[in-house]
Amino acid sequence: MERVKEIEAEIHHDLMAVVKALTEQCGEAGKYIHLGATSYDIIDTANALQFRDGLAIVRRDLFEIEGILLDLAEEHKRTVAVGRTHGQHAVPITYGLKFALWATEVRRHIERIDEAKKRICLGKMTGAVGTQASFGKTGPRIQRLVMKDLGLKPAPLSNQVVPRDVYAELISILAMIAATFDKIGKEFRNLMRTEIMEISEPFAEKKQVGSSTMPHKRNPINAENICGLARVVKSNIFIALENVSLEHERDLTNSSAERALIPETFILTDEILKRAKKILGGIVLYPENIRRNLEMTGGMEMAESVMMALTRKGMGRQEAHELLRRASVKAFNQGVPLGEVLKGDKEVTALLTEKEIDRALDPAAYIGTAVRQVTAAVRSIREKRKRG
Amino acid sequence: MERVKEIEAEIHHDLMAVVKALTEQCGEAGKYIHLGATSYDIIDTANALQFRDGLAIVRRDLFEIEGILLDLAEEHKRTVAVGRTHGQHAVPITYGLKFALWATEVRRHIERIDEAKKRICLGKMTGAVGTQASFGKTGPRIQRLVMKDLGLKPAPLSNQVVPRDVYAELISILAMIAATFDKIGKEFRNLMRTEIMEISEPFAEKKQVGSSTMPHKRNPINAENICGLARVVKSNIFIALENVSLEHERDLTNSSAERALIPETFILTDEILKRAKKILGGIVLYPENIRRNLEMTGGMEMAESVMMALTRKGMGRQEAHELLRRASVKAFNQGVPLGEVLKGDKEVTALLTEKEIDRALDPAAYIGTAVRQVTAAVRSIREKRKRG
Amino acid sequence: MERVKEIEAEIHHDLMAVVKALTEQCGEAGKYIHLGATSYDIIDTANALQFRDGLAIVRRDLFEIEGILLDLAEEHKRTVAVGRTHGQHAVPITYGLKFALWATEVRRHIERIDEAKKRICLGKMTGAVGTQASFGKTGPRIQRLVMKDLGLKPAPLSNQVVPRDVYAELISILAMIAATFDKIGKEFRNLMRTEIMEISEPFAEKKQVGSSTMPHKRNPINAENICGLARVVKSNIFIALENVSLEHERDLTNSSAERALIPETFILTDEILKRAKKILGGIVLYPENIRRNLEMTGGMEMAESVMMALTRKGMGRQEAHELLRRASVKAFNQGVPLGEVLKGDKEVTALLTEKEIDRALDPAAYIGTAVRQVTAAVRSIREKRKRG
Amino acid sequence: MERVKEIEAEIHHDLMAVVKALTEQCGEAGKYIHLGATSYDIIDTANALQFRDGLAIVRRDLFEIEGILLDLAEEHKRTVAVGRTHGQHAVPITYGLKFALWATEVRRHIERIDEAKKRICLGKMTGAVGTQASFGKTGPRIQRLVMKDLGLKPAPLSNQVVPRDVYAELISILAMIAATFDKIGKEFRNLMRTEIMEISEPFAEKKQVGSSTMPHKRNPINAENICGLARVVKSNIFIALENVSLEHERDLTNSSAERALIPETFILTDEILKRAKKILGGIVLYPENIRRNLEMTGGMEMAESVMMALTRKGMGRQEAHELLRRASVKAFNQGVPLGEVLKGDKEVTALLTEKEIDRALDPAAYIGTAVRQVTAAVRSIREKRKRG
Repeated sequence: MERVKEIEAEIHHDLMAVVKALTEQCGEAGKYIHLGATSYDIIDTANALQFRDGLAIVRRDLFEIEGILLDLAEEHKRTVAVGRTHGQHAVPITYGLKFALWATEVRRHIERIDEAKKRICLGKMTGAVGTQASFGKTGPRIQRLVMKDLGLKPAPLSNQVVPRDVYAELISILAMIAATFDKIGKEFRNLMRTEIMEISEPFAEKKQVGSSTMPHKRNPINAENICGLARVVKSNIFIALENVSLEHERDLTNSSAERALIPETFILTDEILKRAKKILGGIVLYPENIRRNLEMTGGMEMAESVMMALTRKGMGRQEAHELLRRASVKAFNQGVPLGEVLKGDKEVTALLTEKEIDRALDPAAYIGTAVRQVTAAVRSIREKRKRG
Repeated sequence: MERVKEIEAEIHHDLMAVVKALTEQCGEAGKYIHLGATSYDIIDTANALQFRDGLAIVRRDLFEIEGILLDLAEEHKRTVAVGRTHGQHAVPITYGLKFALWATEVRRHIERIDEAKKRICLGKMTGAVGTQASFGKTGPRIQRLVMKDLGLKPAPLSNQVVPRDVYAELISILAMIAATFDKIGKEFRNLMRTEIMEISEPFAEKKQVGSSTMPHKRNPINAENICGLARVVKSNIFIALENVSLEHERDLTNSSAERALIPETFILTDEILKRAKKILGGIVLYPENIRRNLEMTGGMEMAESVMMALTRKGMGRQEAHELLRRASVKAFNQGVPLGEVLKGDKEVTALLTEKEIDRALDPAAYIGTAVRQVTAAVRSIREKRKRG
Repeated sequence: MERVKEIEAEIHHDLMAVVKALTEQCGEAGKYIHLGATSYDIIDTANALQFRDGLAIVRRDLFEIEGILLDLAEEHKRTVAVGRTHGQHAVPITYGLKFALWATEVRRHIERIDEAKKRICLGKMTGAVGTQASFGKTGPRIQRLVMKDLGLKPAPLSNQVVPRDVYAELISILAMIAATFDKIGKEFRNLMRTEIMEISEPFAEKKQVGSSTMPHKRNPINAENICGLARVVKSNIFIALENVSLEHERDLTNSSAERALIPETFILTDEILKRAKKILGGIVLYPENIRRNLEMTGGMEMAESVMMALTRKGMGRQEAHELLRRASVKAFNQGVPLGEVLKGDKEVTALLTEKEIDRALDPAAYIGTAVRQVTAAVRSIREKRKRG
Repeated sequence: MERVKEIEAEIHHDLMAVVKALTEQCGEAGKYIHLGATSYDIIDTANALQFRDGLAIVRRDLFEIEGILLDLAEEHKRTVAVGRTHGQHAVPITYGLKFALWATEVRRHIERIDEAKKRICLGKMTGAVGTQASFGKTGPRIQRLVMKDLGLKPAPLSNQVVPRDVYAELISILAMIAATFDKIGKEFRNLMRTEIMEISEPFAEKKQVGSSTMPHKRNPINAENICGLARVVKSNIFIALENVSLEHERDLTNSSAERALIPETFILTDEILKRAKKILGGIVLYPENIRRNLEMTGGMEMAESVMMALTRKGMGRQEAHELLRRASVKAFNQGVPLGEVLKGDKEVTALLTEKEIDRALDPAAYIGTAVRQVTAAVRSIREKRKRG
């Protein structure tokens, strides 16, 4: 390595410096070093090895996270909580559905990697412009032997480099993964809000300092870190897409860009996944806060449930919708529970008994097929996981 | 439609306006319109139909372009031209290799679409937060029947919407396609340069005005148009990645963004592919210019070939490399052909006869396995094309 | 216009079609139409006019929004609310500070426009490559007269086009504006959360439908719309940055890209600002919710205040910090107000009386220099607003 | 520093670790360390110092490059070359105009920095949420003294952090600078093409290896490096724009992102400028190649000149345009010089003598006001440079 650096300082070409240093070491056989090869036969093939190993790490992390999510989904299959759309309370969900939904998204990323791997991990031994002219007729055999040795497949065709659409696909998958964990990180940050506090990152009570001046805080620092790093990973897709347009049999513009692009994207994705594993693996749920939030609006998030109950009794959908809208506005303005307003509404009581109203207002009775859906989704993914 | 717009102006909600208008038209049955459904059951399912049809058009265009490229690759299998790396003349290539390489890239895009389609074209009928609460127990059956009717698959799980990683995958594939055609467009622009002029877009000589003040020009306007539109398509991946991070059971931020994102990305990708089909389908090659460029440097691009010939005669790789470097610099500085310098060099003539030097300097004899590689690649893709 | 379209269909060149149509109309003088000019003399100069007018609209909207924010800042100078960092309750702020802070950011955007305008609104009359060769010696005079007529300045130098760094600066300013209103939109969305509900977009109670199935909801649809559109505007900066790299005296790649870029960016920025004006102009504050949130953690957000009180009595900063950290953890775990824990802590009572503890726990007494800072900032901006 | 790392490992908070370590060192006075301050008072103020120094370096580099360009512009004021639009030969330009045009673009970047600096280099001492509550009444004085000491201005208002629109402006300026040098790098790469070879990067003939297998090449490696790094810098604007949207009084997402964003953007911009200085400072022009290219099309790039000459003699613009278009097509198809075709055309010879045709076809006589424009632009910039 020392000698390589000395030579590079002299000749300004990194790979040729390696070649010269190896040649010096190999005595007689030195003349066969790099014979017929071009720098990018080595670099792109080495990249393919890195991609294979890097993707294996990413996949392993995703697989572990998926396992955690499936366990959480089953454990919280019936943990009813308020659903939120537009940041507003909506009809109930279960935490099981939330976790299982994330698991299906993680599963899609695993599938993306599994399917794309064959296109991404491609080596080459085709010389300066892809013709293998410097290898002569033995070119295909040399390429076949080198790839066999390294456990790679060669690009179907290449010029001086493996075409960079392949690299763009790699980075776009990592960017999509970053986007998913940006979402999960954001969900942690929102559900950890002081006013909501339904879940928490694991937090070492004794020593960890949440804030230098506000010692009571439980800051979602891992989740925030994930969201911040996801921005960097996502921004890198631009570099990868620009690198596709190399000119003719290749220009060198990808070289400097990839020195930042490849390690940064892999390392930061890895960091994102490590932190995600940590916060999902150690997630704390606060059942009393989940219940408190569920009951916060005095049943208004159950308006849809009552609307459906009314339509089952024969009221038109539009009519029921308008009735509930008015009742909700009234409950909101007067600050009383929706149930109270409904029980005092003749149109409602003409169709529903008090008990039916109460039942329609019970969140736990209004989670539809969530349990069944989660069970089926978890089973389906567990089935796929058996194949590794 | 008129009535829908009237209602929307009143209530500020597009889908509810459709529901109201349909309800008005359907008399007694009106009360079942949209019953239990949420707006995004309709919108995301409709999106899935659009994605399916849009991707079919993109795939069909890619398939046609691939066909054109395969024909070109075979036709020009032996059309030897100078290869270029760093914009500089390098060892020879064939136009067949160039076209076949693009075909393998287009083939990868087709594979990406074929593999991703099952993840992208997903409908949903799961109500406001994904639980199907408003459908009751019949939820799964309703979703199954609707999807069957439309020829779609449902998302494994959903909340108010189909998770947007799915949309990010769609846009990232279209962005990668745009990047490939940006490259092809750039290659046209560079090879159509006045100084190079090896190929040309088809050009209607009589009427089309290339420039308002320079009537002699043959501007690569389709290729430039492709490169410009590719910038727009590529930039859209950022919107799609941001949209992944919807909060909780969904926020509405994706809505306004997707109104620009989805039609723009599909329409501009379509325009890119249409123009690509046009310029590849009507490409003109200028053999005399290809030959002129090949001979431009007086054989210096054949230095590698001579170097390999010398090593075959026993000279060390480093030694041969250094010898050729010096000879090339000399030829360049004196403005004489490389062959002349070599024939006057004792180290060379000690190992190679004049005839051997001439042969080493013949570009057509130095395209390695290009023909064989192209033949194999074309055959392999044609085989895949049989499956549609 | 009809005639222009007819001609364009025939010759495939939009500007030449205009020239031909005008020439047909102008009889004898027709021969001077477009004489010596190149298409982009007209297009870029027309763009400059659009930028001037478009920026004037953007600036006017920003100016109005700034005015609204200054009024809000003054009105709520003393509206104490809980501050939030990491989504967690922190020490108190005032709504006045929040609004005034946004005003300073809007002011910076106005300054950016005012300073950049001279670089952005640049016309040109320099012909096909910037030399004015086709105008002859009268070139500079022609350019001067045209610019004077239109109220523009010419680019210091140009080639076929005005250099596109100028356009990148325009789009980057609009992207930064979009980013600011993305922040403000997000703040609305978060502060409108059911659990927080400190503020609200104006909401027409009677007719507007918040959700097709959950009639009680008050969805932040304008804020969500702003955040969605901001993604589109922000993504466009990439197009603008790519367009800078036109080759030689210009290539045409910017043309197709700018047909999407320029109108989309201006129109969507305009829509963002219009909606921002609406929600800021009609913002509703809910004082009781603001107070409720402020008191939610039982005084824990006042830990810093107590810490400072202790240090003023001589306790070391580290010691006080650690003391408060422990007290907060205790209060949090036992679910009691921090004041209660502190009043039972001998280290505290050794230094502070009960009254001093209460005072240290009063949020209204712990807003530091917020009022003074806001007053000064508002005054400073109002001063600048006098100049228009 | 050792002690800081020990403490950080224990408490997971970098800045608090510094505070603790300093406190340990300061004995009695230790209790005043960081008193009332929040981490980001320190970090953002330190960032402002880095921005100030970083921008000074960038500005100094731009200033030097501008100086080089002005010298080149003057030296090559009359170096006539073929202009190129769409990659096609157009009417003549001068290299002086090309260099001077870049100088005006660099000048705009210097102006952007000079104007934006006051908005970018902003410190803060306002505590956890911007109210200075922990500083008490002395807050404004503390901020004033700290800023005075450091030679900074404070942000007009801040919350926990300096608003990130300020950072977005910084990165957008650096991204625009990167875009300009991407253009200049691309121009080098194109003008260094083997077929064009009008200019070259400086190249150390003896030792530097251009390619490991093609020793004759003169690769534009610095220019390619610039273009590659520009992609990375440009992509970072996305991170900076996302960071603007911090929630409430601040969330932590910017933190991890900025650890990549800030050093990477500055370091790579610096590298871009260093390499730009190198290739512009050592640029080699090849006059014989410039002349050869100018004459390549047999005068067809002079069609406009002849057209203008004909209109001066009374022919209508449209008529002249059409005449030249036909003549050029004829010359192109027959491979003869345009002058020959024109001299054989009766419509032309009716208005122009052979001498007048020759003069109209002389590139050096058709550079319009290029010299005058360059002289004026150079003078104007030199005037501004006197102010530093």
